[in-house]
Amino acid sequence: MSTTLGDIARALGSSVEGDPSLLIDNVRGVEQAGAAEIAVVWDPRHYGSLHKSLAGALVIPHDCSVARQNVIRVADPKLALGIVIRMFMTSDAPRTGIEPGAHVAATARTGERVFIAAGAYVGEHAVLGDDVRIHAHAVIGDGSVVGDGTEIHPNVTIYPRTRIGRRVVIHAGTVIGSDGFGYAQWRDAIDKIPQIGIVEIEDDVEIGANCTIDRATLEITRIGAGTKIDNLVQVGHNSNIGRNVLLVAQVGISGSVTVGDGAILGGQVGVADHVTVGPAAKVGAQAGVHSSIPTGEWLGSPAIPRERAGRMFAALPHVPDYRERVRTLESKVAELETLLAQLREKSELADTKAK
Amino acid sequence: MSTTLGDIARALGSSVEGDPSLLIDNVRGVEQAGAAEIAVVWDPRHYGSLHKSLAGALVIPHDCSVARQNVIRVADPKLALGIVIRMFMTSDAPRTGIEPGAHVAATARTGERVFIAAGAYVGEHAVLGDDVRIHAHAVIGDGSVVGDGTEIHPNVTIYPRTRIGRRVVIHAGTVIGSDGFGYAQWRDAIDKIPQIGIVEIEDDVEIGANCTIDRATLEITRIGAGTKIDNLVQVGHNSNIGRNVLLVAQVGISGSVTVGDGAILGGQVGVADHVTVGPAAKVGAQAGVHSSIPTGEWLGSPAIPRERAGRMFAALPHVPDYRERVRTLESKVAELETLLAQLREKSELADTKAK
Amino acid sequence: MSTTLGDIARALGSSVEGDPSLLIDNVRGVEQAGAAEIAVVWDPRHYGSLHKSLAGALVIPHDCSVARQNVIRVADPKLALGIVIRMFMTSDAPRTGIEPGAHVAATARTGERVFIAAGAYVGEHAVLGDDVRIHAHAVIGDGSVVGDGTEIHPNVTIYPRTRIGRRVVIHAGTVIGSDGFGYAQWRDAIDKIPQIGIVEIEDDVEIGANCTIDRATLEITRIGAGTKIDNLVQVGHNSNIGRNVLLVAQVGISGSVTVGDGAILGGQVGVADHVTVGPAAKVGAQAGVHSSIPTGEWLGSPAIPRERAGRMFAALPHVPDYRERVRTLESKVAELETLLAQLREKSELADTKAK
Repeated sequence: MSTTLGDIARALGSSVEGDPSLLIDNVRGVEQAGAAEIAVVWDPRHYGSLHKSLAGALVIPHDCSVARQNVIRVADPKLALGIVIRMFMTSDAPRTGIEPGAHVAATARTGERVFIAAGAYVGEHAVLGDDVRIHAHAVIGDGSVVGDGTEIHPNVTIYPRTRIGRRVVIHAGTVIGSDGFGYAQWRDAIDKIPQIGIVEIEDDVEIGANCTIDRATLEITRIGAGTKIDNLVQVGHNSNIGRNVLLVAQVGISGSVTVGDGAILGGQVGVADHVTVGPAAKVGAQAGVHSSIPTGEWLGSPAIPRERAGRMFAALPHVPDYRERVRTLESKVAELETLLAQLREKSELADTKAK
Repeated sequence: MSTTLGDIARALGSSVEGDPSLLIDNVRGVEQAGAAEIAVVWDPRHYGSLHKSLAGALVIPHDCSVARQNVIRVADPKLALGIVIRMFMTSDAPRTGIEPGAHVAATARTGERVFIAAGAYVGEHAVLGDDVRIHAHAVIGDGSVVGDGTEIHPNVTIYPRTRIGRRVVIHAGTVIGSDGFGYAQWRDAIDKIPQIGIVEIEDDVEIGANCTIDRATLEITRIGAGTKIDNLVQVGHNSNIGRNVLLVAQVGISGSVTVGDGAILGGQVGVADHVTVGPAAKVGAQAGVHSSIPTGEWLGSPAIPRERAGRMFAALPHVPDYRERVRTLESKVAELETLLAQLREKSELADTKAK
Repeated sequence: MSTTLGDIARALGSSVEGDPSLLIDNVRGVEQAGAAEIAVVWDPRHYGSLHKSLAGALVIPHDCSVARQNVIRVADPKLALGIVIRMFMTSDAPRTGIEPGAHVAATARTGERVFIAAGAYVGEHAVLGDDVRIHAHAVIGDGSVVGDGTEIHPNVTIYPRTRIGRRVVIHAGTVIGSDGFGYAQWRDAIDKIPQIGIVEIEDDVEIGANCTIDRATLEITRIGAGTKIDNLVQVGHNSNIGRNVLLVAQVGISGSVTVGDGAILGGQVGVADHVTVGPAAKVGAQAGVHSSIPTGEWLGSPAIPRERAGRMFAALPHVPDYRERVRTLESKVAELETLLAQLREKSELADTKAK
């Protein structure tokens, strides 16, 4: 599976500084790569230690200066990393067919080249497109639809009537379409509002492991095309997540939230119900979005513009000092007031005498 | 499945402003409902756009004024929403029986009209009441007891000896009764404290998807009757959650915590171990409860009374300005002190001369 | 299964104050234990109510003074609790064998005394050591290796090529080896960086329920020997968690993070990518570690030294008062400046006259 360095450079739309005929066997980490391997440098924190790398070749960004041979310079090293990895991936022809021990309801329909693992459960009237892969113990609820080329990993639960687009990947343990958290107070008890809406996952979405995406009370909870969701993320009922959004691990989205296209929510961010996050907004890790925010960078809980939050976070640890300084100021001012009053009194006394 | 508007009003204990003979086919969202459909308005944020709704009829709260025909006014629109949805729900007779591919241990006992899906696993000596529904790949551990009418969704794991009450719903992927996080330091290693207690879930509890509720070290981790738990919630060992409590998504409850009846914990709230949360306390999203709190509203990390927290959060972004203002004050006060000292010296000099 | 109090004391390396021949049937909680039962007191919050305990005997720490007979004093009551529980645990001989309905690939290899439950799925070329226990619906991916004595609970997903050490426990619903969250921007879309590395879990690790540990982009995501992980914890790709680390529930570790040996991260802590947490560092609940921190105690988001954070958190609710006090100071200083200016003017006028 060797490739020449020149071929790699061509795939990256760049050229080799060094020997294009060098044979490369694999892509590895900067610290692990050896003489016949290439590493892709995308983190500036690695620039300083590149002279120690034993890699036979490096892909580096334009802003990285390193005195080495066999280097390929690129504009976007993360994009290059994906391309190089794909060049060395050994992809077995994907397994197809229905393994013994899979449960496929008689009324379910399946496309061409489908793989359904032992222990997978495909419910009544479910529809699986071509090239769909359902791994062990995944459950496709009654009446759900799964588009062409979509892969559902083990132990995923898709509740009934969910619509999943094409080329979607759903990682293990994720639950799509469980009931939204909707209740009304009724005398001394809590009355459940039945959740009869659905979830719709558009094309090219990837959802991490152990996420939860609730079905709508009525209508649709939607995940827009191209959006990528990390692990342990919660999306509440009736929320509408735009296209090409990134939700980092442990984000919690309440009900009826709108997230605009291209927004990025950092790890553990929480968004309150009925809030709108503007398109391309960037919300920093652990922020709490309590009311709607437009495009821009946001941080803190409650979230405020990032620059302002940065100044605030820098100042907060000094608050106990301010406390002292305010106390000192107060006593000084009180003393000044006393002294000044004495001086004024004396001065007025002098005036009176002078008269 | 049509119903007249008059019948809906009667079910809600109200009356129709308009035509009670109007035929209604379905309940939809305010923005989606058409001429033969009804929508329930419970969010004040929708009041302003009701004139645009194409819904044939609306259920609205008393404080919502809208110049429309075919309106039903109610005191509690969320309660009404549940009632109206139930009027239009098509409920197939629930499947019963044990599907081929289900694993039911020989020593397990099952009640009347039980449904056990293909791939469900019912362990030794487990007891399932009447009308229990165990979905695909759910696991009921050895010796666990599941009460009448309870529904266990796919891929749920119930560890051995768990007690689950009647009419409980447990959503997909949730784990009940895994070991509590209990360790002791022993020389250079961490020594596990065996967790031999159990979990008890009382009647009418609903638990969301991918939650984790740990068994007690000794004795019982308890979830009180009527309590509702959202997705991805953690409840630690030996905690005692009261009745009719609401735990919103991603709440984390440590060990040996007591939560009083009717308390509401917002999304991503954390509660430290051995803490008591008072009955009916309301804890705002992302708060951190580090020490016991009584009834009342709480916010922030560490949590303080909500009103005080509101003033604090409003003030914090101004702290960098205070910093400047305190510095300015300090230099002004220093200058005043100097000037005042000069004046006093001069005045004393004058006094001396005068003598 | 009775034991004498003397035997218990011996097991704890201590002695009995009271009757060493007393027969003890079980270990219970302090509030639940009866005359023939022993309780272990490790929480100082219980000291005050020990006179009410009906326990026949108590294990107490040295700093706990209680006027009772049948007491065993120990240095580390948590360590004692584990020892005492083990003395009373009824451990059935563990089931062995492969239950009907388990799926074990023809190319998988299994050791001695293995248990594989109905519905478990062991993929191609997977290797299970001796005494391995795979519970219902757990999935062991192709080519994964599971060491001797390791237990995998129900509905766990182990992705392909994962390496799991000896005596590891993985609780229900946890996902090991799903893809890391790695993407590059490509024109209008988000391009996936294939995640072809692995996860390695070393010996004696315990991982709670519904956790997610991502495979590396390249190379290895590692969990060090003896580390204990609570429920709903996220560990991102390429992170390197040391030995004997404690990660409490809902912790979120981003990608390429290093956590030193013996560190303790409290509940809901978040750690940003590429950050290093020093060995034995203690990070308080809900903290946000945005940049590398050495050994020490840390709190807050962004995390600062615990003592400083304590003073900060105590001061922050007073910030609205400072606001008022700063305003008051400003107006007082302004007034002082005016008055002082008047006095000076007057004094200068007097000087001028005097000349």
